[in-house]
Amino acid sequence: MKELKARILADGQCLPGGVLKVDGFINHQMDPTLMKTMAEELVRRFADSEINKILTVEASGIAPAIMVGYLLNLPVVFAKKKQPSTMSDVWVTEVFSFTKQHTCTLCVGREFLQPDDKVLFVDDFLANGHASMAFMELIKQAGAELVGMGFLIEKSFQKGGTLLRNSGIHVESLAIIESLDNCEIKFKE
Amino acid sequence: MKELKARILADGQCLPGGVLKVDGFINHQMDPTLMKTMAEELVRRFADSEINKILTVEASGIAPAIMVGYLLNLPVVFAKKKQPSTMSDVWVTEVFSFTKQHTCTLCVGREFLQPDDKVLFVDDFLANGHASMAFMELIKQAGAELVGMGFLIEKSFQKGGTLLRNSGIHVESLAIIESLDNCEIKFKE
Repeated sequence: MKELKARILADGQCLPGGVLKVDGFINHQMDPTLMKTMAEELVRRFADSEINKILTVEASGIAPAIMVGYLLNLPVVFAKKKQPSTMSDVWVTEVFSFTKQHTCTLCVGREFLQPDDKVLFVDDFLANGHASMAFMELIKQAGAELVGMGFLIEKSFQKGGTLLRNSGIHVESLAIIESLDNCEIKFKE
Repeated sequence: MKELKARILADGQCLPGGVLKVDGFINHQMDPTLMKTMAEELVRRFADSEINKILTVEASGIAPAIMVGYLLNLPVVFAKKKQPSTMSDVWVTEVFSFTKQHTCTLCVGREFLQPDDKVLFVDDFLANGHASMAFMELIKQAGAELVGMGFLIEKSFQKGGTLLRNSGIHVESLAIIESLDNCEIKFKE
């Protein structure tokens, strides 16, 4: 998606170790207009799918997910990274965050993820795919159907995209980064 | 705001200890259409204020804040509850969460909160006001101006609203709950 790639080149920062910082417009400060435009593009790419629920994870997934949910007029559920004391009946799994180098819990209230749900998962980044695999596990626990996974940015030099596509999942990413070698941002054409 | 009060009565759950659970439409599963309607009402209430930035905190504040930011075409910054390893130059303060009974850090990258910023703070709940007071501290650190604070739900039987209004802050809450005694939801008229 042209607008996103241009913005990444203009305002993204490449850090050593394959880290792309986009905290000026996606995951700390957010550009709501760009967020809506990206959501429109995700909606277009999943136009042929039957979806009744958007699933994401706190915190950076919430903004793109709520915009997709608004456009489709569908409920949006964000998985929590800690099980709140007021939530007992949950689907729960573990996920390892490579960036943060620790394992955390992902949980979704059972009442909000049911066997008749047709879920589109939306998140900001696809890298190693750990969070995505954890969501596949949650969706499986619930007996729901995973319709597809939509990401703003995919790092194709990490293994997540290949893993998910090889599992037969419909994956869409609005900007695919092939390499960050020598801190140069190279998109996949 | 009529739609929100009706939804709280229909889908809110009152738990012992003054807890109102709204995780069916605000802070776990979210209703994006209601979220947009609430944002429109917040924008209406702050129509006379000059604002150039929306500030909120992860995770439940993000959805209302991004909708307000979208309507006003302004950047939205969400404070992080943990300082990421990739963020060094930050405004930082501590906040005690009464619900979670622990202290956490709130931080905002300095480049995203500057002396010329006129900030509207948006969050889902106003209860004891701990998070709000922490934000006042962050905004003060940055030398920015706090224009107002907008909340979806305020519990007026807790002290946050009084504290903030007594400090001269323009506070708007879309539904004000006067009492949850005996697990009965009573709104302030």
